[in-house]
Amino acid sequence: MPREPNNWHETHIRVRYKDTDRMGVVYHGNYLTFFEAARAELMRDMGYTYYHLECSGYRLAVVEAGAKYHGNVGYDELLTVKTRISDLQRVRVRFAYRVFDQAGRLLVSGFTVHACLNSDGKPARIPADLRKIIGSPPF
Amino acid sequence: MPREPNNWHETHIRVRYKDTDRMGVVYHGNYLTFFEAARAELMRDMGYTYYHLECSGYRLAVVEAGAKYHGNVGYDELLTVKTRISDLQRVRVRFAYRVFDQAGRLLVSGFTVHACLNSDGKPARIPADLRKIIGSPPF
Amino acid sequence: MPREPNNWHETHIRVRYKDTDRMGVVYHGNYLTFFEAARAELMRDMGYTYYHLECSGYRLAVVEAGAKYHGNVGYDELLTVKTRISDLQRVRVRFAYRVFDQAGRLLVSGFTVHACLNSDGKPARIPADLRKIIGSPPF
Amino acid sequence: MPREPNNWHETHIRVRYKDTDRMGVVYHGNYLTFFEAARAELMRDMGYTYYHLECSGYRLAVVEAGAKYHGNVGYDELLTVKTRISDLQRVRVRFAYRVFDQAGRLLVSGFTVHACLNSDGKPARIPADLRKIIGSPPF
Repeated sequence: MPREPNNWHETHIRVRYKDTDRMGVVYHGNYLTFFEAARAELMRDMGYTYYHLECSGYRLAVVEAGAKYHGNVGYDELLTVKTRISDLQRVRVRFAYRVFDQAGRLLVSGFTVHACLNSDGKPARIPADLRKIIGSPPF
Repeated sequence: MPREPNNWHETHIRVRYKDTDRMGVVYHGNYLTFFEAARAELMRDMGYTYYHLECSGYRLAVVEAGAKYHGNVGYDELLTVKTRISDLQRVRVRFAYRVFDQAGRLLVSGFTVHACLNSDGKPARIPADLRKIIGSPPF
Repeated sequence: MPREPNNWHETHIRVRYKDTDRMGVVYHGNYLTFFEAARAELMRDMGYTYYHLECSGYRLAVVEAGAKYHGNVGYDELLTVKTRISDLQRVRVRFAYRVFDQAGRLLVSGFTVHACLNSDGKPARIPADLRKIIGSPPF
Repeated sequence: MPREPNNWHETHIRVRYKDTDRMGVVYHGNYLTFFEAARAELMRDMGYTYYHLECSGYRLAVVEAGAKYHGNVGYDELLTVKTRISDLQRVRVRFAYRVFDQAGRLLVSGFTVHACLNSDGKPARIPADLRKIIGSPPF
């Protein structure tokens, strides 16, 4: 019987005035920025920052992104972004995200798929040390 | 035999410095903003601005969005965003987007799905006058 | 002899990929967003959130803003934004900001001036309870 | 008798939903982005794009920016940004901006000061060909 994966990482993001639009809620496109911030914190807490990955000559270019919007939230809300690595291939990695408000209401669910590129911009195998950490995240 | 729909609307968007990231290309999340700008221009050229729709007490809340990234482009590029209404239901409407650089290279393809909401935030039938225009766009 | 005011409030902000531009550093305009976030945290720590102020029917509209850029900083840096209320008039309040990198280097200094407006958008005296807190900040 | 300089360049910018905040107007910090877009168009119309300048190994780093806010404007407004070069030194150049709504009402006035840097990030004399064009703008 399938069960909810329990290896979601959590990041908290405060909604800024800048994040809102004239409807009084977070502009839908800004959730991609929140996904990015949450992904970076997940990697930091795994002990392998995205910044370190780029310094090593690699990057994880976004090749696909998607989001479903279930609810809205406005200024000064403290969001919880749950993130996990939902698929790992030779070159590609997929992150899943779920954003909640303070009352625990699901606002947005989404994903990003990334291709590992080397310093020439060519697809490259995800570095072994990162792959090892992803395989057994420490949380 | 299926053929490429020929009712794509075109908008041109200049890439600003603000749109770029440290990789020297447009930050992936910003394409959702470009989609929004293109969608507004499509509606304007149909003779029914999105602003007018909101003044009439309705709005088209984004309930889903997605993008596939095929190529990158940097500062000062003049993008062409092709947009069309790819599905129309009672309450929901779907827009499709394709972003090209000046050389005609496909950079991003994507979509947004919107639910029409009334002034109480409840799902509402898309207004008849807008529905009529969408059914036979003037371009 | 003038001395450095010692009532600076501190907020920490992590630089996101979205914040950077093609030069690899924080886009200059984004510091105004960081000022906003820092101002909100200062008010929260004073025990009177900006959100609460707006709920009370007032707002602090930005009437002037300025920044001097002394240094640059890139992705994933953890910024320290020091903020204080540098002037308080009947209707207007001025915040001063100083942004530092992790090495303690001053990156940006700036200010914003705000006019208190009531729910009709008219200039209004800053509410007495906020004024009292500002006069003797608890940090 | 002083008179208004008549060499203001004009750019038009449409306000996007993304540009607005929960107060229903353009977020104050976004005017710096509009200044950037207007500055780029001024240079393009002078026949010397900012992109070309960067390709030549130089850049105009923002060292100071300021804005005064006189009025607000909301979604879908077509702004006119008037821009001119208000000072030119050996290394530094200053741009002035005035943003108007469609009714001709002044919304924001501002400025940016830039230092020319070479490819090593060191202050450098503004290239002679750019300096010559700035001295006698073709509009």
